[in-house]
Amino acid sequence: MLEGPDGGAGYGKDWLVTADAYVPTREDKFSFGIWTVGWQGVDVFGPAVRPPMPADRAVRKLAELGAYGVNFHDNDVFDFDASPGERDARIADFTRALADTGLVVPTATTNLFSHPMFKEGAFTANDRDVRRFALAKVMRNLDLAAELGAGVYVCWGGREGAESGASKDVRAALDRYKEAFDILGGYVLDHGYGLRFAIEPKPNEPRGDILLPTVGHALAFISTLEHHEMVGVNPEVGHEQMAGLNFVHAISQALWQHKLFHIDLNGQRGPKFDQDLVFGHGDLLNAFFLVDLLENGGYDGPRHFDYKPARTEDITGVWASAAANMRTYLLLRERAAAFRADPRVVAALHTAKLDELAQPTLNPGETATELLADRSAYEEYDPDKAAERGYGFVALNQLALEHLMGAA
Amino acid sequence: MLEGPDGGAGYGKDWLVTADAYVPTREDKFSFGIWTVGWQGVDVFGPAVRPPMPADRAVRKLAELGAYGVNFHDNDVFDFDASPGERDARIADFTRALADTGLVVPTATTNLFSHPMFKEGAFTANDRDVRRFALAKVMRNLDLAAELGAGVYVCWGGREGAESGASKDVRAALDRYKEAFDILGGYVLDHGYGLRFAIEPKPNEPRGDILLPTVGHALAFISTLEHHEMVGVNPEVGHEQMAGLNFVHAISQALWQHKLFHIDLNGQRGPKFDQDLVFGHGDLLNAFFLVDLLENGGYDGPRHFDYKPARTEDITGVWASAAANMRTYLLLRERAAAFRADPRVVAALHTAKLDELAQPTLNPGETATELLADRSAYEEYDPDKAAERGYGFVALNQLALEHLMGAA
Amino acid sequence: MLEGPDGGAGYGKDWLVTADAYVPTREDKFSFGIWTVGWQGVDVFGPAVRPPMPADRAVRKLAELGAYGVNFHDNDVFDFDASPGERDARIADFTRALADTGLVVPTATTNLFSHPMFKEGAFTANDRDVRRFALAKVMRNLDLAAELGAGVYVCWGGREGAESGASKDVRAALDRYKEAFDILGGYVLDHGYGLRFAIEPKPNEPRGDILLPTVGHALAFISTLEHHEMVGVNPEVGHEQMAGLNFVHAISQALWQHKLFHIDLNGQRGPKFDQDLVFGHGDLLNAFFLVDLLENGGYDGPRHFDYKPARTEDITGVWASAAANMRTYLLLRERAAAFRADPRVVAALHTAKLDELAQPTLNPGETATELLADRSAYEEYDPDKAAERGYGFVALNQLALEHLMGAA
Amino acid sequence: MLEGPDGGAGYGKDWLVTADAYVPTREDKFSFGIWTVGWQGVDVFGPAVRPPMPADRAVRKLAELGAYGVNFHDNDVFDFDASPGERDARIADFTRALADTGLVVPTATTNLFSHPMFKEGAFTANDRDVRRFALAKVMRNLDLAAELGAGVYVCWGGREGAESGASKDVRAALDRYKEAFDILGGYVLDHGYGLRFAIEPKPNEPRGDILLPTVGHALAFISTLEHHEMVGVNPEVGHEQMAGLNFVHAISQALWQHKLFHIDLNGQRGPKFDQDLVFGHGDLLNAFFLVDLLENGGYDGPRHFDYKPARTEDITGVWASAAANMRTYLLLRERAAAFRADPRVVAALHTAKLDELAQPTLNPGETATELLADRSAYEEYDPDKAAERGYGFVALNQLALEHLMGAA
Repeated sequence: MLEGPDGGAGYGKDWLVTADAYVPTREDKFSFGIWTVGWQGVDVFGPAVRPPMPADRAVRKLAELGAYGVNFHDNDVFDFDASPGERDARIADFTRALADTGLVVPTATTNLFSHPMFKEGAFTANDRDVRRFALAKVMRNLDLAAELGAGVYVCWGGREGAESGASKDVRAALDRYKEAFDILGGYVLDHGYGLRFAIEPKPNEPRGDILLPTVGHALAFISTLEHHEMVGVNPEVGHEQMAGLNFVHAISQALWQHKLFHIDLNGQRGPKFDQDLVFGHGDLLNAFFLVDLLENGGYDGPRHFDYKPARTEDITGVWASAAANMRTYLLLRERAAAFRADPRVVAALHTAKLDELAQPTLNPGETATELLADRSAYEEYDPDKAAERGYGFVALNQLALEHLMGAA
Repeated sequence: MLEGPDGGAGYGKDWLVTADAYVPTREDKFSFGIWTVGWQGVDVFGPAVRPPMPADRAVRKLAELGAYGVNFHDNDVFDFDASPGERDARIADFTRALADTGLVVPTATTNLFSHPMFKEGAFTANDRDVRRFALAKVMRNLDLAAELGAGVYVCWGGREGAESGASKDVRAALDRYKEAFDILGGYVLDHGYGLRFAIEPKPNEPRGDILLPTVGHALAFISTLEHHEMVGVNPEVGHEQMAGLNFVHAISQALWQHKLFHIDLNGQRGPKFDQDLVFGHGDLLNAFFLVDLLENGGYDGPRHFDYKPARTEDITGVWASAAANMRTYLLLRERAAAFRADPRVVAALHTAKLDELAQPTLNPGETATELLADRSAYEEYDPDKAAERGYGFVALNQLALEHLMGAA
Repeated sequence: MLEGPDGGAGYGKDWLVTADAYVPTREDKFSFGIWTVGWQGVDVFGPAVRPPMPADRAVRKLAELGAYGVNFHDNDVFDFDASPGERDARIADFTRALADTGLVVPTATTNLFSHPMFKEGAFTANDRDVRRFALAKVMRNLDLAAELGAGVYVCWGGREGAESGASKDVRAALDRYKEAFDILGGYVLDHGYGLRFAIEPKPNEPRGDILLPTVGHALAFISTLEHHEMVGVNPEVGHEQMAGLNFVHAISQALWQHKLFHIDLNGQRGPKFDQDLVFGHGDLLNAFFLVDLLENGGYDGPRHFDYKPARTEDITGVWASAAANMRTYLLLRERAAAFRADPRVVAALHTAKLDELAQPTLNPGETATELLADRSAYEEYDPDKAAERGYGFVALNQLALEHLMGAA
Repeated sequence: MLEGPDGGAGYGKDWLVTADAYVPTREDKFSFGIWTVGWQGVDVFGPAVRPPMPADRAVRKLAELGAYGVNFHDNDVFDFDASPGERDARIADFTRALADTGLVVPTATTNLFSHPMFKEGAFTANDRDVRRFALAKVMRNLDLAAELGAGVYVCWGGREGAESGASKDVRAALDRYKEAFDILGGYVLDHGYGLRFAIEPKPNEPRGDILLPTVGHALAFISTLEHHEMVGVNPEVGHEQMAGLNFVHAISQALWQHKLFHIDLNGQRGPKFDQDLVFGHGDLLNAFFLVDLLENGGYDGPRHFDYKPARTEDITGVWASAAANMRTYLLLRERAAAFRADPRVVAALHTAKLDELAQPTLNPGETATELLADRSAYEEYDPDKAAERGYGFVALNQLALEHLMGAA
């Protein structure tokens, strides 16, 4: 039952947690950032609309709603300026809640963006002392992450960027960014932690332009790292869509490069401020194909939600929104499976020549020279006839849409 | 003198080619795509507004205006369905014009997007026969490119993409994309051509979503190629800006990864259709910092313009627009040099701590463990005091703007 | 049955026209632009991929698929440079097809953008002769529109705009735009035609910036017209979304101002080139709320599709895509009705205080002074308590999403 | 002299206030929002980076820098929950600073977005009590605005909007919006205040979609108001650009409709979060043409800056950024005047036929019927010849760019 403002029953939203086919179980591997349900609603134009939520409270309620894990920034659990004693006490509360509920911590991360000292960056801050502090802060939290059993350590460089051209030498900044990951990779290896890193790209906000703005830029950067094999990406739906890019395409490339270490699911309505809507409440068709890909594309990590409960919601609405993420995923999963199983879809994929796309372009053993000598491939090929062919893509997409709508 | 509609003098635009400090010379290494000045103005809503321009005509006039080189698609020089004899004749005209003018061909490329057979892609077309044809077409033009002395072969995959989710298995498509570059790289090596490839990313148009949508995605893809060392990028100003991304940041990352093999300069006014405006006629501040970077960042390739003369222009306007690209570059180059030389700028860069950004974060020989043990870096560091520091970025940017405006 | 490339049966897409609940009838008032199914696929990067389609062919097949009406540009029926005899012959073919099929012509429009003479505009062209020609062209087609019984005359000013700042004095251009509508309104009144005008806004493409870029700008302009009562808007889904705006909000304002004279349904995936996808194949959630609004908001005009069959499609795909538009609308209509009828939705709307929004803010007869004197409204009002209230918007949106998905 | 962090001299930024041609005087009519220099830097990802600044401190320093006026929200001067005594004391401080400095208050506004009670809107909040409170709050501040001599009262409805489709009935919301302005207009008239209202449109942020998202939508809405003659718009550079729209075009339409009551100058880099950069630090070419328009288009109100000093700046940077806005305006004003005076520009405008655009399309006294009968306008007109004409727009734009760059 959802909790009302008074801790009592939610007003009429119990359908969200009703026992139907879309109630999550731990096998679904749904996880949430502690900071998501804990978001108090501060934005540029107004202060908090909800009281603070201790991390252990979030853990207990998310467990009740069907999640299997949580992800945390260090300062979601304890304050930036917590004394060692306070830090230990808050961690103890948190781990007790984990133990009580059986929730796992598949992922952890560091807050390198809230304290004003990070206003100009952390790993790539122009101020070298800030960079040193940032690295030390991460290493401390890597210890905690390892202790809690996290397998992935997310790095979102939200303040690594610039608003104007001369204020950041991007090449020097990338040197420092690489230095940071080389150091941290070494640290993890030295300590034998079972941790891999996942870089979370974002094009802008809070900085005018953020370094490593898309999944592509992050993957490219990773290829230069000393410990590149232990660094992947943590793409977020809305971040890629803030650049007008196709999130499914980005995830496909990340999977293709074996670099999808984690994923942040949420919703966004195109290039504007970072909305962090509930998963599916943005571009629903893309969400459908995303779930289709995740379920069939070899990703077996957490289905992690990084969203913000709208500022219009009270605590009941917070939990309703958390539940909504999971329901949407389950609905889409069911719809995507039916889509793939539909014989009309199988036929349409054949018409669309998806099977030919899966075949190499060269024949087995064929060389470039042999292809060039194959007159049927070029001199005797009829381009105009090829041009007449229809691929039936629109009908295929309509089938997808009708499956998504439960109408096929 | 600019040519008027009647081949006579341009009506009042001679100032564009007046002998002043901004008249290009061949040392400036300005090059143009043959297809730029040759664009006839066909768009989705209307047909050609200007007559066809033979490639050799473009070469001669561009030489007159101060360019040093040209770039061409195979079908800029000869038609897609030219007979071998026609092909040879058109190439002969083209090479004669090159010889007469002394213009070089630093770059060449293939048209894999105009013929309707490519409506669904070329290297990643679902139809395997189309892919085989595309590879054969490229290999044929690689021979010509090598013969003409090109050093870079540009690959813009304009039709490699999709409008809907199921019509393209992006992972399979990337397999095919990689296969294509592995084959072509081998072909170039086998023939001992001095060619490198430059992939030109674009987020969309003409496809709903194009594969390798940004400089980042292309760089990431390149890291997976068999002959990755001979493949770089050819970023275009407008393409990155169509995704709302900072072009200077993208070029910085490409340079940092030693992958800026070529560049396409033009103008764009944000996320909308591909405008291909004159260089500087879009985001002027970004163009200023771009020239600043190109001039000081180790790029010594062509300053290549890939723009479209507006559909409102007649042939006089076409040449005026070509000249305008070069003038703008030269103006920006002068302004950027003055900016860097200004003692106030030097001081502001110091205030902004750009020199600290250039320093490694670790001390010489320092390890991660030693950093962690350095209490001055964390335990004894005062974050609140660090937070008080101002970086003077806005004043620095105002200095840039005033230099750009010739007012500093 | 859908027609295959050879005029035979479509390959496996007959499900699109199977007799199910989503087969359109004429009562559904679906109409299409002749130019939609007739689009040959010319874009900036490639030529036609399909043969021309005579207007009467489009009429007959659209009738077969369940449409009730068509909309046409003059030059969809006869060529720009048709002789009077050719013009008459093509109109005769067209009207015969209308008579044979019973299709109506609720709307007509003028092509003022294709011929290169309009490259710089039509009603607001800098060249006065072009403006005069444009007005004469429209008046001629108004006669035909009236003769064919059209009730709405659409005006899309696709070439009315600019790429650069000084090339268009926008205030003078608006004077000319107003002059054009004042003249045309007078012409219609003088001839006693039962026609109203509908301005179709678009932010850009083919011009860099188009005048009257959004529904708002068009409504504002209309308020200045001499015959403002006979001019409304014809908003197009994708056009408003190209500016990142909420189409449902725009339609709401147009309805609120009693100015929704017509509507163009299609799909778009955010700020990029004009995609003209099938309705629903873009932002599906917004399409859901759009149908909800159209069905309940007092609009009883045609449900008109202005889309482009993807370039990847042959003629079978063209008809499949036409059918898909109508199926999607019918599906969404059914889903929206169920949403509104769901008691959980009724309750959630009450929680969200939609009923209070419908109430005036002042009490009956209350004055501003009386409100100011009402201490309960301000001095004794508890803002902090008001701030605690949750609106349950996210749960309400999840209900919408589940209805859309046929899961509620 | 700029004030350093310690109240001493700014570190090396004195050039910003050096006596040169770009030092503002009160005749320049520069004004600032108190909240601009007072912005503490709270964003979604981090807290304040600068201490609070009392309104009177802002007044005194802005006067010193050359501003002639300030604009304030009620809660910029006194806190939301200030007691009557505190309110009076703060107002007294503020008015004393005004008196001491001679600064005027041309504009005032209400904060209807910060307090959490407004999280769901103010004039269009679903909650009727919130709406009543909002109206009362505005009326109270109208009294103060009138007392301080303000002539324009700005209304930015930042929280009037929605994130999801069913949570707001936009037509009902517009009823309430209209009700609010009808009430407030009556209140002002009843009290004989010399105030006019200026609605400030914005497409999104903090709400997912804000009502009256663009200048166009606001102008259209205004035409429906009871006291429409006393309501105009207050467009903000960045707001229109967040929708990818051309700000100069928007201002042109507002001027054309005699509705430009006020203007907010700042900078933005395309569709993304609201950046509030210094004027000119976004789209510089558009800023150039904006100043050109404001100086020549009949606007004589304040040149008002609504920007945010970057979070990277300390108090010295705050003042430097304030000064930068004014310098940029003065530079652009000078450049625009030179552009208009250049004989090459005059000639290019003639080639571009701007003079013809200023002429009515009909001859004096000509009727539509007469135009239709003028065979030279249509039957005997040669469209192909018309199509050949070039307008020289690109060269004209290059002239603008070179003037902007101080190079012409």
